[in-house]
Amino acid sequence: MNASVVEAIPAGVCVPRGFVAGVAAAHIRDDGDERRLDVAVLRSERPCEVAGVFTRNLVKAAPVVISQLTLRQGRVQAVVINSGNANACTGAQGFRDALQMCKAAADGCDLDPGQVLVCSTGVIGRPLPVDRVVRGIRDACAALSPAAGEPAARAMMTTDTVIKIANTTFEASGRRYAVGGMAKGAGMIHPDMATLLALVTTDAPVARDVLQPVLARVADQTLNCVTVDGDTSTNDTLLLLANGVAEGEPFTEGSAELAALERAVFEVCDSLAEQVVADAEGATKHFRVWVRGGADLAQARAAARTVAASPLVKTAIHGADPNWGRVVAALGRSGAQFSLDRCRVEVGAITVFDGAPRAVDPDAVRAAFSSARIEIDCDLGAGEHEAHAWGCDLSAEYVHINADYTT
Amino acid sequence: MNASVVEAIPAGVCVPRGFVAGVAAAHIRDDGDERRLDVAVLRSERPCEVAGVFTRNLVKAAPVVISQLTLRQGRVQAVVINSGNANACTGAQGFRDALQMCKAAADGCDLDPGQVLVCSTGVIGRPLPVDRVVRGIRDACAALSPAAGEPAARAMMTTDTVIKIANTTFEASGRRYAVGGMAKGAGMIHPDMATLLALVTTDAPVARDVLQPVLARVADQTLNCVTVDGDTSTNDTLLLLANGVAEGEPFTEGSAELAALERAVFEVCDSLAEQVVADAEGATKHFRVWVRGGADLAQARAAARTVAASPLVKTAIHGADPNWGRVVAALGRSGAQFSLDRCRVEVGAITVFDGAPRAVDPDAVRAAFSSARIEIDCDLGAGEHEAHAWGCDLSAEYVHINADYTT
Repeated sequence: MNASVVEAIPAGVCVPRGFVAGVAAAHIRDDGDERRLDVAVLRSERPCEVAGVFTRNLVKAAPVVISQLTLRQGRVQAVVINSGNANACTGAQGFRDALQMCKAAADGCDLDPGQVLVCSTGVIGRPLPVDRVVRGIRDACAALSPAAGEPAARAMMTTDTVIKIANTTFEASGRRYAVGGMAKGAGMIHPDMATLLALVTTDAPVARDVLQPVLARVADQTLNCVTVDGDTSTNDTLLLLANGVAEGEPFTEGSAELAALERAVFEVCDSLAEQVVADAEGATKHFRVWVRGGADLAQARAAARTVAASPLVKTAIHGADPNWGRVVAALGRSGAQFSLDRCRVEVGAITVFDGAPRAVDPDAVRAAFSSARIEIDCDLGAGEHEAHAWGCDLSAEYVHINADYTT
Repeated sequence: MNASVVEAIPAGVCVPRGFVAGVAAAHIRDDGDERRLDVAVLRSERPCEVAGVFTRNLVKAAPVVISQLTLRQGRVQAVVINSGNANACTGAQGFRDALQMCKAAADGCDLDPGQVLVCSTGVIGRPLPVDRVVRGIRDACAALSPAAGEPAARAMMTTDTVIKIANTTFEASGRRYAVGGMAKGAGMIHPDMATLLALVTTDAPVARDVLQPVLARVADQTLNCVTVDGDTSTNDTLLLLANGVAEGEPFTEGSAELAALERAVFEVCDSLAEQVVADAEGATKHFRVWVRGGADLAQARAAARTVAASPLVKTAIHGADPNWGRVVAALGRSGAQFSLDRCRVEVGAITVFDGAPRAVDPDAVRAAFSSARIEIDCDLGAGEHEAHAWGCDLSAEYVHINADYTT
């Protein structure tokens, strides 16, 4: 087998060695579109150490509960995903259906159901058409291939308009390792039910107890930065699977190898985060809010997320309205402690506020707000801590998308 | 003077005896509309006991800071209000301008500047055109009349489409008293800068120390129920002025008279709250979320407000999309503790969820979501506490209004 040719084909989660994916059109949405991909299965040739970050919503979808339980049991070897139905708020039947999805994937992959994680995304409160889903899982398992990284990312999509994949490589102890990922986002900025799912794979060998802290740290700096605090969905799931197929000694806590892996996982998740926000429902542009000078990290983070989530900031950016006062107002209600006369706000590279309004050309601010990717830089002048958040504009299209989601 | 004739003319804040108002078009917006009312002055014939509830935003507009300080000093006799400019984030100049507004109103009303409260609403971060404002205040003071209750409510408006006034009467100790109010709202549901202002007057005699708790309790049950928690503007102000012109012994803590006043103030503020939400920016319908069965009041309130503020609930209602799963998802992320299998959700009179989805006709839910005024009733099954919140739909028009607010 010519490794370079094989590596040229795979994308996303199939880039790390030993991972294959399969997809199917199971017609879960029942909308007459018989060809829309809505089931994906990811399989590793070896059992994987696994870490997960899940929704903090009290209302957890059945697949989230099942995957959390499975994850505690030990290593896993496959993940099964469907879009079009979140299997959330579906009562006892929902749990039976989620378990049946694991069973079907296990049968198709020749594994034990306890080695399969399950993710769902889509509408809440409707029973899963489980017979169609199971048929789809069988089809997906029959089609497992290292070339299905992109189709797997497509099968996760709900109102996403493009697939979201990323991958990178790193060296450690003289060996080359890969990290790959895919995500679905869409209504991510208000992800009550947009149900962010992200799956990251690596062929690195990692000691189990150190994988979870790596993923938790990376999530806080990447995908959680596009999450309005607390505004998680019933289904949000981020998984990291490490199958060790690239060999070597297991990476341990505090090692240079683990640090290199963490950087690579960060790079993949940071890219997925920006892809998610750039393709948010109805978004025409996206922006990053940096908050510096926070009294502590929690305050810096709250300030950045409050600005990024503010409907009035989002609409001002949509219309390229030079209404920077809304940024200051959002900082003020974020819970962060600061003194207004030490606060400084930049839009693009233009200082608009520095304890008092700066005389600025409104057209220059308008131009800054007209970019496809906008930087808003705030200094609270209250300490040394900083954080960032990703946001997108709020458009009439967002309203149209969400006003008739189920119909 | 024939009291019945006089009482037939006044409206809103001029209904209680001894209050007069004056308005002017000061051309604060500089938009070519020379006739748009943007300054109002309210004057009482006697010094008033006064209570106030102000924004919890760390960034407080200059008029808020000045009014809070004035309120601590003792009784007041006038309030001066402008729309079109919030005088927020305007540095030291903003404080000078707010004080100059008080001075101009004091001059025009023959009072001391320390007897005048000041409120501003409009765009943030622009210096007040103080010369025009001062001229407007002089004109308003020259036109004081008991008939200017409606024009005063009009002069407060920003993107409001209709004026918001309410009044009622009550009997206590054999005497008849009145309570009147006016408010401006508009972007109230996300009031970062929509800057809710509300002014309530009464001719009842009230002991100073009991007036503030009355207003605080009423605000929590009325105008604060249309406020997303923490999502207050830089300018939010609710004032209650009691001039005692209707005579009688001062109402004291625990008295039947004070309870009657509180009911009347509640009635006026509850009406203003519903008027505000019904006229929210871009709103085509509004809804009330009742949350019962909360473990404590704070949780019930958080749950109700989270549902009412959820962009996905608001867009579903806009499109009459029977997507009730979003209500359950919002309850789940609200911070309220409950068990999903004891949770029950009704939309209109239709039970859509009761531990598990109920089989309901989507068209019936669609019809419920098509009403101009919608009731959403949630029982968390976790305790005895209940709370409500007002919300409105999120429309494309909201985006259009806020995408070019300053331009």
